[in-house]
Amino acid sequence: MPSPQDAPVASGVHSVNTQGSIEPMRWRGDHLELLDQRALPEQILTLRIDSATQTAQAIVDMAVRGAPAIGITAAYGVVLAAQRLESAGDWRKPLERAISELAGSRPTAVNLFWALARMQETIDAHREASQAPLAALLATAKDIHRRDLEDNHCMGALGAGVIARGGPCAVMTHCNTGALATGGHGTALGVIRSAWKRRLISEVRVNETRPWLQGARLSAWELQQEGIPAVLAVDSAASLILAEGKVKWLIVGADRIAANGDVANKIGTLSLAVQARHFGVKTMVVAPASTFDQSLASGADIPIETRSARELTHQGERRITPLDIVVYNPVFDITPASLVDVLICEKGVIETPDREKIAALLR
Amino acid sequence: MPSPQDAPVASGVHSVNTQGSIEPMRWRGDHLELLDQRALPEQILTLRIDSATQTAQAIVDMAVRGAPAIGITAAYGVVLAAQRLESAGDWRKPLERAISELAGSRPTAVNLFWALARMQETIDAHREASQAPLAALLATAKDIHRRDLEDNHCMGALGAGVIARGGPCAVMTHCNTGALATGGHGTALGVIRSAWKRRLISEVRVNETRPWLQGARLSAWELQQEGIPAVLAVDSAASLILAEGKVKWLIVGADRIAANGDVANKIGTLSLAVQARHFGVKTMVVAPASTFDQSLASGADIPIETRSARELTHQGERRITPLDIVVYNPVFDITPASLVDVLICEKGVIETPDREKIAALLR
Repeated sequence: MPSPQDAPVASGVHSVNTQGSIEPMRWRGDHLELLDQRALPEQILTLRIDSATQTAQAIVDMAVRGAPAIGITAAYGVVLAAQRLESAGDWRKPLERAISELAGSRPTAVNLFWALARMQETIDAHREASQAPLAALLATAKDIHRRDLEDNHCMGALGAGVIARGGPCAVMTHCNTGALATGGHGTALGVIRSAWKRRLISEVRVNETRPWLQGARLSAWELQQEGIPAVLAVDSAASLILAEGKVKWLIVGADRIAANGDVANKIGTLSLAVQARHFGVKTMVVAPASTFDQSLASGADIPIETRSARELTHQGERRITPLDIVVYNPVFDITPASLVDVLICEKGVIETPDREKIAALLR
Repeated sequence: MPSPQDAPVASGVHSVNTQGSIEPMRWRGDHLELLDQRALPEQILTLRIDSATQTAQAIVDMAVRGAPAIGITAAYGVVLAAQRLESAGDWRKPLERAISELAGSRPTAVNLFWALARMQETIDAHREASQAPLAALLATAKDIHRRDLEDNHCMGALGAGVIARGGPCAVMTHCNTGALATGGHGTALGVIRSAWKRRLISEVRVNETRPWLQGARLSAWELQQEGIPAVLAVDSAASLILAEGKVKWLIVGADRIAANGDVANKIGTLSLAVQARHFGVKTMVVAPASTFDQSLASGADIPIETRSARELTHQGERRITPLDIVVYNPVFDITPASLVDVLICEKGVIETPDREKIAALLR
């Protein structure tokens, strides 16, 4: 087994599949292949992932990111752990250690814990088995993966239907919630894709999304691949753009949604939702049911990850800030439900979300 | 005379003066020395500037930036032009061509045009002279420079007085409005300096200020040099920070203020003012009288500079976005007077600014 220091190994150039769609992760029979999102769009590289430790490291390092994509990847990470334990007598404890390791990779996106809970259920269903239930775990991981893609197409249709009520317009999106962030198609970017196909989108205003630049690097690339007209701007140009009146919808994803409808999402979402409300632009949050955390009463209970100061102090190897400057780098924020106009999941559409509407939809 | 292609020449390491203060420009008897703000804080380099063309280029390239600093620098640029024309018979036309060239360097900050108009007045007062009025022009430029510093100290005291009413607090600032952006001390950062000396500031939340990162590179450096506690964050973390309730003031500068009090300032200011209003944080705009443009009825009339896409698509020489992505890079926005709680210039303090109050103050 590799030591915890083992980094995932770059394994070559990733090709787009026959449908031309973008796949952030592929199960390759005995290992996982990840499209290295740190290198995009400059380079299309894949990482070969052979263990749960490598999987966790790839999530920590953001080789794969996006709440649903993290969940799917972690599920395959459990399969990789099981694969190594197939002939072991005591397989349950090491497998549950692997789940703990994967759960410790990132704190905010609940899809990670949701996917690992589904894998745990599969383990529990086979707790008397003499061997690790590899086939069952792989089936669960593939099911999580496949259903995420299906759910995204469903959300895309639901969201496009909501946009259709007002007629074609420009929309703004933040971060990357596309195929790269999910099992395919995307959540918020999936709605944009679906609405574009229905000729409901005139253009997409993409925020670059500091510090990691998911918008500038990933969403810009996905939109370009689809031929959807996209215009990139710095995050802080949002008010200037929203004030112009062309953008009718701010469409974002979510990393966790509390029982009352408060939404944890990429840093800047709260800022944008405040500005959207000020300028009369509607905010749509798009996330699968696996993003809802009914155990948390409100957004105040959602843990917010802060990441390394280096994401602000350096560009590549070059330091751009003074030495020893104190940096605050929260990578998510909480948008209160009161600033969300429409919440979309595969189970349906909620307008002006609240605790009761969410509970009814998820029931 | 150098060709228009002549770039300013790096002339060595800049030392801080005996008071330890930061000077973006120094008149050196027969040439201008600029602290190259593109290299800060990594390197402290100076540029030797010998002509109006080099001066204009340094402004275009943002070796010097900040509305008041641009005005002062341009005034010295006229002196440099006059110096070369001292023995010329027909000095007026080439000198006015130099003024035109300097006026074409950047469009938004009105201090540039204000300073050039003052230089033009000096020319007009000497229109019958047989030689370019070098001594008079140098005296005017030095007067613009000296008075800017004095005015900043005055605004600092006025702004600190306003903050004092509410007691010590954290403040947020955007871009760089410090000594580097002015003749010294600063406008918004000058208020922060003055308030800090009166123990009215607990900490300064500095937005990195994409795309040029004036906050991360320049304000962070200035605050560090003063020993003022500063915390750097991405621009889009503003709402998360303002929602915490510690920040009581958003304090920003201005590049042009229309007759009705609408404020052109660094891109992001409008976004921040909207967010500040939402979270009950007051917005203070600090700018010398030379920033007010009474010829423009409202902010809609202020020209907004858009700069190169490269400021978003590249980090140094490295391209980070997909090829051919469309970029919108406006570097200023307009904050309506209705979102400004306090406007401070050296002539006084205006609360909830409007056309009448501004006209009365400037009269």
